[in-house]
Amino acid sequence: MAKKLVYLFGGRGTKAEGNAEMKDILGGKGANLAEMTNLGIPVPPGFTISTEMCRIYYETNGLPKELKTQVKEAIRKVERIMELGYGDVEAPLLFSVRSGAKASMPGMMDTVLNLGLNDATVHGLVKMSGNERFAYDCYRRFIQMYSDVVMGADSDALEEELEKMKHKKGVRLDTELTADDLKKLVAVLKEKVKKLTGKDLPSDPMDQLWGGIEAVFKSWNTPRAITYRKLNSIPDEWGTAVNVQAMVFGNMGENSATGVAFTRDPATGENVFYGEYLQNAQGEDVVAGIRTPMPINIKGKRDASFLSMQEALPDQYNQLEEIYLTLERHYRDMQDIEFTIQEGNLWMLQTRTGKRTAAAAVNIAVDMVKEGLITREEAVSRVNPDQIDQLLHPQIDPKAEKNVIGKGLPASPGAAVGKVVFSAEDAEVEAARGEKVILVRIETSPEDIHGMNVAQGILTARGGMTSHAAVVARGMGKCCVSGCQDLVIDYKKQVARLGAAAFKKGDYISLNGTTGEVMLGEVATVEPSLSGAFGTLMKWADKIRKLGVRTNADTPKDSRVARDFGAEGIGLCRTEHMFFDADRILAVREMILSDDEQGRRKALEKIKPMQKGDFEAIFEVMDGLPVTIRLLDPPLHEFLPNTDAEVAEVAKALKKTPAYIEAKRDSLHESNPMLGHRGCRLGITFPEIYEMQVRAIMEAACGAAKKGVKVKPEIMIPLVAHVNELAALKAMAVEVAEEVMKASKIKLDYLVGTMIELPRAALTADEIARQAEFFSFGTNDLTQTTFGLSRDDAGKFLPFYVDKKIFPKDPFTAIDQDGLGELIKIGVKKGRSARRNLKIGICGEHGGEPSSIEFCHRAGFNYVSCSPYRVPIARLAAAHAALKNKK
Amino acid sequence: MAKKLVYLFGGRGTKAEGNAEMKDILGGKGANLAEMTNLGIPVPPGFTISTEMCRIYYETNGLPKELKTQVKEAIRKVERIMELGYGDVEAPLLFSVRSGAKASMPGMMDTVLNLGLNDATVHGLVKMSGNERFAYDCYRRFIQMYSDVVMGADSDALEEELEKMKHKKGVRLDTELTADDLKKLVAVLKEKVKKLTGKDLPSDPMDQLWGGIEAVFKSWNTPRAITYRKLNSIPDEWGTAVNVQAMVFGNMGENSATGVAFTRDPATGENVFYGEYLQNAQGEDVVAGIRTPMPINIKGKRDASFLSMQEALPDQYNQLEEIYLTLERHYRDMQDIEFTIQEGNLWMLQTRTGKRTAAAAVNIAVDMVKEGLITREEAVSRVNPDQIDQLLHPQIDPKAEKNVIGKGLPASPGAAVGKVVFSAEDAEVEAARGEKVILVRIETSPEDIHGMNVAQGILTARGGMTSHAAVVARGMGKCCVSGCQDLVIDYKKQVARLGAAAFKKGDYISLNGTTGEVMLGEVATVEPSLSGAFGTLMKWADKIRKLGVRTNADTPKDSRVARDFGAEGIGLCRTEHMFFDADRILAVREMILSDDEQGRRKALEKIKPMQKGDFEAIFEVMDGLPVTIRLLDPPLHEFLPNTDAEVAEVAKALKKTPAYIEAKRDSLHESNPMLGHRGCRLGITFPEIYEMQVRAIMEAACGAAKKGVKVKPEIMIPLVAHVNELAALKAMAVEVAEEVMKASKIKLDYLVGTMIELPRAALTADEIARQAEFFSFGTNDLTQTTFGLSRDDAGKFLPFYVDKKIFPKDPFTAIDQDGLGELIKIGVKKGRSARRNLKIGICGEHGGEPSSIEFCHRAGFNYVSCSPYRVPIARLAAAHAALKNKK
Repeated sequence: MAKKLVYLFGGRGTKAEGNAEMKDILGGKGANLAEMTNLGIPVPPGFTISTEMCRIYYETNGLPKELKTQVKEAIRKVERIMELGYGDVEAPLLFSVRSGAKASMPGMMDTVLNLGLNDATVHGLVKMSGNERFAYDCYRRFIQMYSDVVMGADSDALEEELEKMKHKKGVRLDTELTADDLKKLVAVLKEKVKKLTGKDLPSDPMDQLWGGIEAVFKSWNTPRAITYRKLNSIPDEWGTAVNVQAMVFGNMGENSATGVAFTRDPATGENVFYGEYLQNAQGEDVVAGIRTPMPINIKGKRDASFLSMQEALPDQYNQLEEIYLTLERHYRDMQDIEFTIQEGNLWMLQTRTGKRTAAAAVNIAVDMVKEGLITREEAVSRVNPDQIDQLLHPQIDPKAEKNVIGKGLPASPGAAVGKVVFSAEDAEVEAARGEKVILVRIETSPEDIHGMNVAQGILTARGGMTSHAAVVARGMGKCCVSGCQDLVIDYKKQVARLGAAAFKKGDYISLNGTTGEVMLGEVATVEPSLSGAFGTLMKWADKIRKLGVRTNADTPKDSRVARDFGAEGIGLCRTEHMFFDADRILAVREMILSDDEQGRRKALEKIKPMQKGDFEAIFEVMDGLPVTIRLLDPPLHEFLPNTDAEVAEVAKALKKTPAYIEAKRDSLHESNPMLGHRGCRLGITFPEIYEMQVRAIMEAACGAAKKGVKVKPEIMIPLVAHVNELAALKAMAVEVAEEVMKASKIKLDYLVGTMIELPRAALTADEIARQAEFFSFGTNDLTQTTFGLSRDDAGKFLPFYVDKKIFPKDPFTAIDQDGLGELIKIGVKKGRSARRNLKIGICGEHGGEPSSIEFCHRAGFNYVSCSPYRVPIARLAAAHAALKNKK
Repeated sequence: MAKKLVYLFGGRGTKAEGNAEMKDILGGKGANLAEMTNLGIPVPPGFTISTEMCRIYYETNGLPKELKTQVKEAIRKVERIMELGYGDVEAPLLFSVRSGAKASMPGMMDTVLNLGLNDATVHGLVKMSGNERFAYDCYRRFIQMYSDVVMGADSDALEEELEKMKHKKGVRLDTELTADDLKKLVAVLKEKVKKLTGKDLPSDPMDQLWGGIEAVFKSWNTPRAITYRKLNSIPDEWGTAVNVQAMVFGNMGENSATGVAFTRDPATGENVFYGEYLQNAQGEDVVAGIRTPMPINIKGKRDASFLSMQEALPDQYNQLEEIYLTLERHYRDMQDIEFTIQEGNLWMLQTRTGKRTAAAAVNIAVDMVKEGLITREEAVSRVNPDQIDQLLHPQIDPKAEKNVIGKGLPASPGAAVGKVVFSAEDAEVEAARGEKVILVRIETSPEDIHGMNVAQGILTARGGMTSHAAVVARGMGKCCVSGCQDLVIDYKKQVARLGAAAFKKGDYISLNGTTGEVMLGEVATVEPSLSGAFGTLMKWADKIRKLGVRTNADTPKDSRVARDFGAEGIGLCRTEHMFFDADRILAVREMILSDDEQGRRKALEKIKPMQKGDFEAIFEVMDGLPVTIRLLDPPLHEFLPNTDAEVAEVAKALKKTPAYIEAKRDSLHESNPMLGHRGCRLGITFPEIYEMQVRAIMEAACGAAKKGVKVKPEIMIPLVAHVNELAALKAMAVEVAEEVMKASKIKLDYLVGTMIELPRAALTADEIARQAEFFSFGTNDLTQTTFGLSRDDAGKFLPFYVDKKIFPKDPFTAIDQDGLGELIKIGVKKGRSARRNLKIGICGEHGGEPSSIEFCHRAGFNYVSCSPYRVPIARLAAAHAALKNKK
């Protein structure tokens, strides 16, 4: 017996020759069509040519005879079901041809519709549809599509003929062309195809079909398809299947229709059948926008005058309801379905898992558990962690009118509406007056933090997704649009231009940090609602996950937000952010500008009580949870004044000359500050700074403990390259800590550990772990040093690299598992070899990114730490990681 | 029987109780004294208390009775040999007490001399020596030393009393005090000790001795000693031995003497006995400088009036000759010996391997092979690779008069004499006139290279041992003094100040790059002589070593020097150095300043023939040897003009406005250029640059091949982080290479490989090796990224780090084997796992540093590459590595 190469599907009340398990030979689409058939769902009949045929095609460079026999036989069966004939001039059956590999694969041939049309059969279509214009429109579309996809004609050249015809007739839309126009166009197009390809468009329906089938097989090996496979590790041997399916039409009269529906509301998740349809219409009519679709059921009627399908075609509607319930039960998820009714017969064209908003995803998942349809674990795995970011910030009201004047990078999600200010100082002044403000800057620096803190949102002209503005804003859970390149700011005149628009200080603008849009005026927003379902889902996630989730927070306010979002501690509290406050920066500058240790100590004494107060407040908020505080990290020159005015101000306050301040600043200048005198290098060369900080931390801890707060301080030494650095600083920290506790007559558990943020630290993690009581991987800097890539400078080539897939992903967004991951694994292994129960976490930006969180799970981390507003995302992603890696 | 704790040594014609093998229990010094005794050499008798006693001391916190018994017995034996009595008032025996662990260990007690002196025995010493002043000087020294070392008195307070006495007597030198003065001083000092310590200085000789012994044991656990042990991995359990030895005096009349000698000339290595002595004198008399030492033998007499020991004390001289020959034969190396003759009796106080100049080291090693004393392998291992650097450059004549006006860092060895110029341009102008010039700059940049190239030497005010000036000068084998911090240059006035001196353009100065000294005027120099012995030794080294030695050279001239020094290929030819030549930089700037690819291609077409010419010349010099050429590496902004004048010049030449040039320069500015848009990132984003370079290389190779030159080009892609970068650029390189060869009708073997200079490249070396045909570890950048440490900025803390031993060594000088070494090993292992015969080399500065070369040997490298003038050093170091790791 000949090998089976063709598998039938579709019809009514029959079984298909394949099923959902047979994706290897039927491809994804073919297997799914067979599956629907087997569920008893009416699917336009057709057949799938197996992937094996694709392999044979490439081996033999042709289509074997046995295929031809099997295809012809399959066609006869389809003709019988449809009661039409392929090539029949009276009642012509038309086919669509589609590719369909095991995995969805852009780059291959998509679809050719209406195969079977020619100058003779088109008359049959006219007769069947009673619509000459429709029939000829199908025909001219067929010619354009077929000649392009199968024959390789230049589609622009054909489109030009269409344009010419419209121009000639003085119309703007395709739909304004009459049947006669289209008839003429068909003739012109056929001529053109001949001219372009040197060949006639085949008129014989079987020739058309073989051409289509061969084109699908050929499309498997186009350069685009090959590239896509390479990038996505899809084996070349898989091959593609070909799906040949009967065309059905929803425009064959009033008992015909076409529609789309969701089995639940995709916006809210509500368990209602939701959709739209059009009577006597094709799908394209909806797209063309000439007719308004009607609601599918009475429940969906916004207007009493609308005629729902439930009312107009009640039998078919009832059948559709039954089908959608079958499909949802079968696929155990909300489905997005397409259907056509041809002369009273309902045909299902497609079902697939429906896209949904984050809110809907959460509600559907939780509801389906209640309905007994899925397990809690499945519910958790159904909600994409990245997606729930939407739920955690106010959003631009999707229904609001918007005047979008430009676009930047979606640096920190959410929406913001407020009056424009151009400086952090003005932001504070206006905010103190109760105004909502948007801080607009060319770029931000650490000195702008107090302004960012009071602003609703931040807009910058420069800087990428990991610029200062973006990182800080995300940390604050604040909307930010960064790198808005067309934005031109004139600080002096306090005005800005963006594209054709302009705005000045005090004008209202609105930002959409989720899309990067900048809008003029006050656009309405909607508040996030962390619904009961959300809380339920997060509780399930917490039970599943193995990783702890902490937060990166520098203030009591951020700590509170994070704790409310479920943070189980602080993984990174940056002490330097506290240094920039207006009432402190002067003392900090005095410290830096001192000529000797004594001068520095004097200034540090002024700073200590402030730091102590901050820490104590944070300990109180985090009562019972661990708080990791990193000692001073950035190079000192970051704190010095930049503008002449600032220099003059500082000089005056410190009783020095501006020239002195400038000379000192210049002497601190570095060629590569990222690799310069910072982190523990400061602690080693200016021990008094770290000493003050440890004292402030421990005094704060003892102070809080006296009030009954349960404190768990963890002192973190940054930028350690060599164990000797850590050993020296740990000895100092322990000495100071013991001294403070003795003086306070309080005994606290505290840890001293380090950030692993330099390759050398990971490579010598065993030595370092002999000193460190915990590790926190600082993957921001570790990415920079491992790649030799400055985050600040990468803008010139990194987008190009990511775009061209030279780097598979932006390594600052997701942990580079091949390279950096290797280093992290070495660090974990060596670290635990020296200290078996070493606590290991991550506190880089990656700590809130799902694929990185999964990596941390697999690498055996104890926790991840991320910005407060990403804590729920991390909790969910950690649960996903646990599920995915469950054995 | 009681445990043996005391081991006798010394005397004449006896055997010691220990020998050289017993360092574990006798310590190094004790074992050596025993060994000399066993060789039949007269050593002042004494005894060693074993290291075991040290352990017992710390366990029991005291000295056991059995020790006391054994010590007393040993004293009796020494008394018998010396015919003196310890504590005898007529003929007092005096002792020295010294510590002596298995390894030499600063931080422990050194020596207390003259134990046994008190108010009674001092009279015996007067009688024996016939010199009252001497006896009382011994006594007051004993009091000062003993009270300081054993009793912990403040030595400054005692020294003060000496000063008071000198002041009172109106004298300047100790030696001007009379016997009476010293007698009084002794009384004063004893009072003072009582006052300072609350205790009398013990007058009983046995109490003195026990005090001394205990002090040695205690010194094992001083903080300094503990720290030293920790840093040098010396186990605490070793403990120290104590050496108690009879004092002998060379000032007991005309048949007494003292002297030092070398068994061969330590300056030249000539096989002559060489030394100095003083009759009726103690070693201190030589130090005090009141008497001129006399030559030890007739051969050494510079002046006929001198009286050599050979003439004055012929018997003792003959005995000494016999001893030195014995010692040299025994230790099989040149010895540095000390002796004292007391009343006609020759005593050897010390023998140790003598320090020598590089020239002497080479000559002695080669001579000793000829003499059959050592093997060739031993000869090679006897010469320190670092030391021979001296032999490869002209040197300041050690006999010349010098006016040293300041000191900088010894950045590149050798000597330079010439007229001062303050700019590279002036250097070229003056050099063209035949003048020898010294280029004096605040610091140098790549644009100064043409000036450095023609200068005799370079002096800079800023920059460390790895600054641009230092690195380039070492590469050129040119003398350089960098970081001369006191140097103040006024470019406008063309003058400079250094300390109290000043010089202007055209003045002569001299530099000593080996010491960092800057001298006014023309100081005489001596040329290096690569003597026959040197050549012989290098040939032996070449036979031993397994590592290849290549050079880093960018010009035909450097290539020639390196080849003459034995380089076996070029490991790194930097194409960008060629870009800075005055006649090219404009085309380079035109390329960078172009707005589009077309503009760049136009400019590149101008550069190509120049590059091609350079490469062809290098291929010719390196006929038959491989030449690795690295494609463009530095960020483009390095090539742009800096000063307003330069900007104006470039603007004029390129017909652009200065503002345009400045804007372009500013747009290329980077926060961390080291981690910026450079290396292969340029090749990826501006493919036309690398394409031009590959074309120039291959056209040059084909051109040279046509002339009969055997070319082996190796194209090296820098700064690869991800295999995709290399894959894309290799594909381009191969395409261009094949095209050029096809056009030239020549088929060449060529390789395409990469530098491993980013941690990620090492971590993913398996993936990269699938593309790369060779690896060259760029350990300069790899050190920077692995440590997160900018070479340019490290000056603020790295010296402190190295000084405080936070980093055991400067990682830019010697490969950090614990951290970086780990990464390199990963790179080698993974690289060879993917490509078994992968050729691996190193081209960082470390490639010429002996400990790094040894690491490369152990890590399985194929070759090291270093600057031309370090090639012989690398050859020798590679031989050392092979010997050291021979199994």
